[in-house]
Amino acid sequence: MTLLTFLDHASVFVFALTGALVASRAQLDIVGFVFIASLTAVGGGTIRDVILNRDTVFWVANPTYIGVAAAAALGVFFTAHLLESRYRAILWLDACALAVAVPAGVAVALTMGQPRAIVVIMGITTGCFGGLMRDVVCNEVPLVLKQGELYVTCALAGAGAALVALAFGLATPLALLICAAATFALRAGSLAFGWRLGVYKAYPPRQ
Amino acid sequence: MTLLTFLDHASVFVFALTGALVASRAQLDIVGFVFIASLTAVGGGTIRDVILNRDTVFWVANPTYIGVAAAAALGVFFTAHLLESRYRAILWLDACALAVAVPAGVAVALTMGQPRAIVVIMGITTGCFGGLMRDVVCNEVPLVLKQGELYVTCALAGAGAALVALAFGLATPLALLICAAATFALRAGSLAFGWRLGVYKAYPPRQ
Amino acid sequence: MTLLTFLDHASVFVFALTGALVASRAQLDIVGFVFIASLTAVGGGTIRDVILNRDTVFWVANPTYIGVAAAAALGVFFTAHLLESRYRAILWLDACALAVAVPAGVAVALTMGQPRAIVVIMGITTGCFGGLMRDVVCNEVPLVLKQGELYVTCALAGAGAALVALAFGLATPLALLICAAATFALRAGSLAFGWRLGVYKAYPPRQ
Repeated sequence: MTLLTFLDHASVFVFALTGALVASRAQLDIVGFVFIASLTAVGGGTIRDVILNRDTVFWVANPTYIGVAAAAALGVFFTAHLLESRYRAILWLDACALAVAVPAGVAVALTMGQPRAIVVIMGITTGCFGGLMRDVVCNEVPLVLKQGELYVTCALAGAGAALVALAFGLATPLALLICAAATFALRAGSLAFGWRLGVYKAYPPRQ
Repeated sequence: MTLLTFLDHASVFVFALTGALVASRAQLDIVGFVFIASLTAVGGGTIRDVILNRDTVFWVANPTYIGVAAAAALGVFFTAHLLESRYRAILWLDACALAVAVPAGVAVALTMGQPRAIVVIMGITTGCFGGLMRDVVCNEVPLVLKQGELYVTCALAGAGAALVALAFGLATPLALLICAAATFALRAGSLAFGWRLGVYKAYPPRQ
Repeated sequence: MTLLTFLDHASVFVFALTGALVASRAQLDIVGFVFIASLTAVGGGTIRDVILNRDTVFWVANPTYIGVAAAAALGVFFTAHLLESRYRAILWLDACALAVAVPAGVAVALTMGQPRAIVVIMGITTGCFGGLMRDVVCNEVPLVLKQGELYVTCALAGAGAALVALAFGLATPLALLICAAATFALRAGSLAFGWRLGVYKAYPPRQ
C-alpha cells in the first residue's frame, strides 16, 4: 500500500465516521447512515478526480473504499449511543479527516504534475467538499461557514506548508506529513483555544 | 429504441413531472418549471455519467431528453391545479421515477463492464441524486432523509435484485424488470403501509 | 486575449464580487471570502466543462482565474463597508456577471461544435450554477428561485438571441455581444421595473 493509498483510505474512514454521526443526528436508518457516510467520505476526492479529469475516479477504480465507508457507518450505528456528545465527536473527527484528506489531495495533484496553485486548490477541495456536501444535504450549518473558526484556512495552510517543505528539498512523504500536522494543529488550535482570523462585521449583517 | 434508451427516457419524463410539481410548490414561473424539471430529470444520470467518465453525458449525446423534460414541465404547469394534493402526487411519481432510474443506472454500469459494487452504486446514484438536487435547491426536506421511510434502501434492494437475477442466469432485460419491480414494490410498501427499518434514536437528537 | 478568454475572466471577476458580498453577509473571515468568491466565480464554468468533457477545466488549464477571484474577494473584504446596501450590490453585480457568463458558456459550446440545444443549455448552466451554489452553500434564497423575477429566463433569452443572430449570418463576436445585451437588459428590466412572467399560484402553495 502506497502512502497515497493509505491517506485516501484513512480520510475515507474518518470522514465516514463524521457522516454517520451526522446521520445519527438526523435519526436516519442504517442504510441512511451508509449513504451519508459514503457521500461524505468520497465526496471531496470525487470532485477532485472529476475536475482533474483522472481516467477513473479513485473509488470506481477500487470499490473497497465504499466498503470502508460502510463499515465505519455500521460501527457508528451500533456505538454512537456511548458518546457523551455526538456533536463534539463530529468536530474532532472532522478535524482528523481534514488533516488526512488535504495531503491526499495534494499528493494526487503532485503525482499528476499540476502547477502549485492547483496543488493547493486540490488539497482544499479534497479536504472541504465532502463535509460541505454532508452538511448541505443534512441541513447542518456547514463547518466551512462557522463564524470565528478556522477551517478552509487550515486546509490552505496545510497545503502551503507541503509546498514550502518541497521547495526546501524535503522528500514528498515528509512534506505530506508536515501538511497533515499543520492542518490538524491549526484546526485543533481553533477548536480548543479559539484561534481565529478577524471576521467581517457590519450591522445588520444581512443588510 | 433499446431498453436502456427507454428506461432513460421514462426516468427523465417522470422525474421531470416531480420537479415541475416541486416548482409549483415554490410558485415559480414557466421557465422555472422547465429549469427545475430538467435539473431533477437529468441530475442523477449526469452524475453517473461524469463519475463513470463516459465519453459523452447521455443528454449531451441526445438533447431530446431535455425536450422530454420541458414537455413534462409544461404539462404540469397547465394541469397541476387539477390535483387534489400535489405533495402526494410528488411522492408517488417520485416512486415511479426511482423505479425506472435505478435499472437505468444499473444497465449503464453493466454495459460498461463495471464490477458489481459499482453497478449497485450507480443504480443508487442514478435513482437518488436527481431528486436530492431538486429538494436541496428548492429547500424541501430531501425524500432521501425522511425519517421512517425507505428510500435509498429501495434503490439498494432493486439493484441487488438485478445482480441476483443475473447470477441465476436470467437475461439482462428480465433482470432490469425485476430491479424496477423490487424498487417500486418496496417504496410503495413504505409509502402505503409504513414499511421501515429501525431508525437511530437518541435524545436529544441534535446532541 | 481572445474574446472567449475575456468573457471568462470578466465573469469570474464579477461573480467573485457577488460571492464575497454574500460572504460578508455571513460574516466570514478573509479566507472564507476567497473560498466563497472562488466557488461562485468558477462554479458554473466548471460544471459546463465537466459536462462537455473538455480535456481540462478552464481554471485548471489557467490558474490565474483563481487569482482574479481572490483579488476580487480581497477588494470586497476591505471596501464592502462603504456600500449602502450590500444586498442591492449583489443583485446588480450578479446581473452583470450573468450577462457575461451566458455568452461565455455559449461561446465554449459553439467552439466545440455542439448542437443548438446544448449551446443554449450551456449558456444557462454557465450563467446560473455558480450563483446557485453560492446561495445554497450560504443559505440564501437562490436568485434562480425568487418569485416574480426573471432569472433563468434572461439566460435563456440571451442564449436564444445569440443563436438567432448567428442564423442571420452575424459574426460570432457580434452574436455574443447581442447575447450579453439581451441577458442584461431583461434582468435589469426585471429588477428595476418588475418585468415578470406569470407565476404558478395555488393555495396553499405547499399543498
